[in-house]
Amino acid sequence: MNYKLVRYIVGWVLLIEAVLMFPSLLIAAIYRERAGFGLLAAMACCAASGLLLTLKSPDSKKMHAREGFVAVSFCWIALSAFGALPFVITGAIPSYIDALFETVSGFTTTGSTILADVEAMPRCLLFWRSFTHWVGGMGVLVFMMAVLPLAGGSNMYMMKAESTGPSVGKLVPKVKSTAMLLYRMYLALSAAMLVLLLIGRMPLYDSLITVFGTAGTGGFGVRNDSMGSYSLYLQAVTTVFMILFGVSFNVYYLLWNKKYKTALKNLELRAYLLIIFGSVVLITINISGMFDSLFEAIHHAAFQVATIITTTGFATTDFDLWPSFSKTILVILMFIGACAGSTGGGIKVQRILILVKSIRNELDVIVHPHHVRKMKIDGHVVEASVIRSVNIFLASYVAVFALSLLIISIDNFDFTTSFTAVAATLNNIGPGLELVGPTGNFSQFSALSKLVLSFDMLAGRLELFPILILFSRGTWRK
Amino acid sequence: MNYKLVRYIVGWVLLIEAVLMFPSLLIAAIYRERAGFGLLAAMACCAASGLLLTLKSPDSKKMHAREGFVAVSFCWIALSAFGALPFVITGAIPSYIDALFETVSGFTTTGSTILADVEAMPRCLLFWRSFTHWVGGMGVLVFMMAVLPLAGGSNMYMMKAESTGPSVGKLVPKVKSTAMLLYRMYLALSAAMLVLLLIGRMPLYDSLITVFGTAGTGGFGVRNDSMGSYSLYLQAVTTVFMILFGVSFNVYYLLWNKKYKTALKNLELRAYLLIIFGSVVLITINISGMFDSLFEAIHHAAFQVATIITTTGFATTDFDLWPSFSKTILVILMFIGACAGSTGGGIKVQRILILVKSIRNELDVIVHPHHVRKMKIDGHVVEASVIRSVNIFLASYVAVFALSLLIISIDNFDFTTSFTAVAATLNNIGPGLELVGPTGNFSQFSALSKLVLSFDMLAGRLELFPILILFSRGTWRK
Repeated sequence: MNYKLVRYIVGWVLLIEAVLMFPSLLIAAIYRERAGFGLLAAMACCAASGLLLTLKSPDSKKMHAREGFVAVSFCWIALSAFGALPFVITGAIPSYIDALFETVSGFTTTGSTILADVEAMPRCLLFWRSFTHWVGGMGVLVFMMAVLPLAGGSNMYMMKAESTGPSVGKLVPKVKSTAMLLYRMYLALSAAMLVLLLIGRMPLYDSLITVFGTAGTGGFGVRNDSMGSYSLYLQAVTTVFMILFGVSFNVYYLLWNKKYKTALKNLELRAYLLIIFGSVVLITINISGMFDSLFEAIHHAAFQVATIITTTGFATTDFDLWPSFSKTILVILMFIGACAGSTGGGIKVQRILILVKSIRNELDVIVHPHHVRKMKIDGHVVEASVIRSVNIFLASYVAVFALSLLIISIDNFDFTTSFTAVAATLNNIGPGLELVGPTGNFSQFSALSKLVLSFDMLAGRLELFPILILFSRGTWRK
Repeated sequence: MNYKLVRYIVGWVLLIEAVLMFPSLLIAAIYRERAGFGLLAAMACCAASGLLLTLKSPDSKKMHAREGFVAVSFCWIALSAFGALPFVITGAIPSYIDALFETVSGFTTTGSTILADVEAMPRCLLFWRSFTHWVGGMGVLVFMMAVLPLAGGSNMYMMKAESTGPSVGKLVPKVKSTAMLLYRMYLALSAAMLVLLLIGRMPLYDSLITVFGTAGTGGFGVRNDSMGSYSLYLQAVTTVFMILFGVSFNVYYLLWNKKYKTALKNLELRAYLLIIFGSVVLITINISGMFDSLFEAIHHAAFQVATIITTTGFATTDFDLWPSFSKTILVILMFIGACAGSTGGGIKVQRILILVKSIRNELDVIVHPHHVRKMKIDGHVVEASVIRSVNIFLASYVAVFALSLLIISIDNFDFTTSFTAVAATLNNIGPGLELVGPTGNFSQFSALSKLVLSFDMLAGRLELFPILILFSRGTWRK
């Protein structure tokens, strides 16, 4: 293991984090908030630690799979550990574990909170909290690769570890250019949403926060009722953009290159839209009696389906009060998640497709043992190693889920609370049901549970393997 | 597809079912119950249908994988459909769907019931209900293969479909001899338990019922409080035998052949016992405050752990009142289940071991892509096709679980009830939590839900694939 290289990369990420805190400092200056000094102190900590770690350049910048995955995991842990400092230093969140939970929730674009009263927080800190969504959505290391000429062309492992989906490919031959392209599209889509929100007369500050929460599929807001008190127009714009940010950026790249047909034929995109459509129809039928008009029922059903499947986690209404059938649909959507290569979390539609196809193939193998069959998606053969990896992903997922649930249950909350708390964090959603429902929060959990749930958020965002290899003996063997 | 052969096999199974009803008829005669006439009528139905289907011998008795799996599924559906007749004809369970649920629950050794007052039922029907556990545990087709010279040596597919575990092998070269051997060991173990219960002064009738419920890992009893009012000795005997029936019969075969070392080195056996031990310790610590003495806490913890991991489903106490941590352990045990090749349900310890090892291998592949590694269990290499099949089993399992949960939730019960109702039936346990907890029952569900849960019981008992292939287009293609 090239420890020096890992140390060097973590150092650079901390330097970048210091820079990323700058916009929040501006907000503090604009609103003349004292919390700005705390932010400044946190920036100094990041910068100092970053400088210390990058002081000595590593002898070799050769990166193997191992270094790539370990570096990404360590970077995310460091980002969260230092990103929590502004909350602690300013005293806005006195407990470090709470602040860590909140920051992990930010970077991993989860949106679960331990805050009962968001509106009481200084604006610059809320800005920082939401800005982590935006950065975490597309990825901090992807950002770093876009702006820094780090380790030649061997950064692909880091990109693989940080990007979502079962098989990450480059859009263009160079990793650096791919990273820049991704951020350019991300920025364009975010800007478009910002304009539409401003047209709907949302204040600039609120608009920025909402864009960060939507683009990163995070879900942090500035109001205690999440999106509940915004106008129907603003909620509808958010619904559409949540769905858009749940789409693979590969599809946007195809559209960018005017390959409209290929883009719209994309199997994952079609499955994703079909699941959304089907869920909205079923939930609308189920909840129509609770609203004055059919339109209102469709509106809330669409918002909630979009916010859950994309793993954003905003709310316009307390869906914990909906009938069981609707809630079960939402719980299942939590696990399905968004498209591979998007900023969303969950298992990902692409993986669900591969799993369904592999079940179908296996049933065929049982009755016709001598047939040879290959799995194809969008005309391309899915390699056996990808199928295997996806299946083992599911097994790891279930294992992490069960273990987390077991530890969380020591807190003695009801089964639904514990179950959906793990589901909401491991899938990077935000709210669950019962005590962690849209009107609740995660503050009542013990420190141990908060650490476990923070682990789940990181594991979910990095799609398990980069985090799990930290616990594998083979990783540390010489 | 050789439909005639499938028809012929189903016919034979119905004939056997008619014979299997005979002991219950004896009970009716002994206790002079009028319900005996209903039983007799049901026997006549089975026999007549069986004769009709076996009238014409199929032209070819050649059996491919397809015919084997389809035949087993159809046999189990037919068994349940006809096995429900005694309850309906006698009027003891007026609704056919309820009777079907109860019979499926019997044959699949689940033990979930729609009866609120078991003690009000005629004894001969309770005997039939419990006897289905005993027959279903080791398998009706395995029984048929032991006693009938059906289709030459090609019955291995049926044995594979009906026996539990990821890779079913023969104990001795001939299928027929293997089947006989299995039933001989099953009978010996059942007889040993019967003697020990009689020594503890349990009435003969109760003893037989308890043996059927334990040996098949079913869980139907004759008292409304399950095992709660029996003596500590009887409960302890049952605890031990539940654990014994959760062990693979391959291990007993090794012991029978005096290969003690090989038997005790068996990885699955060790894992199974370790899980039981660990769970008992954790639960005892968690519930010790609820009982007068530590001994009592250990006793109840051991009984409940044994009854859940072996998927039997008896109860000595209402574990739904236990703290969340203990309940979560029990819920996780529901999914793990007993050993492959036992009469127990669930995912099976063997599959869990393969899954854990495949996760470990995959993490190793990620950091060292060029290493070649093989999975070994008990010194034997696990074939790639078995690993793949186990992983896809998990995916199918999750899919069936999610779909069932969705449909059940239309009934609008709380999440815990719906979730554990599916868990309890798909894993062939019996009771779940909340409304379907040890003091509850399944009568409150709608007819649709009862059908879905019956499907889950069958799917769980046959380990998914034999049932799922009925829905696969490839199965019916020429």
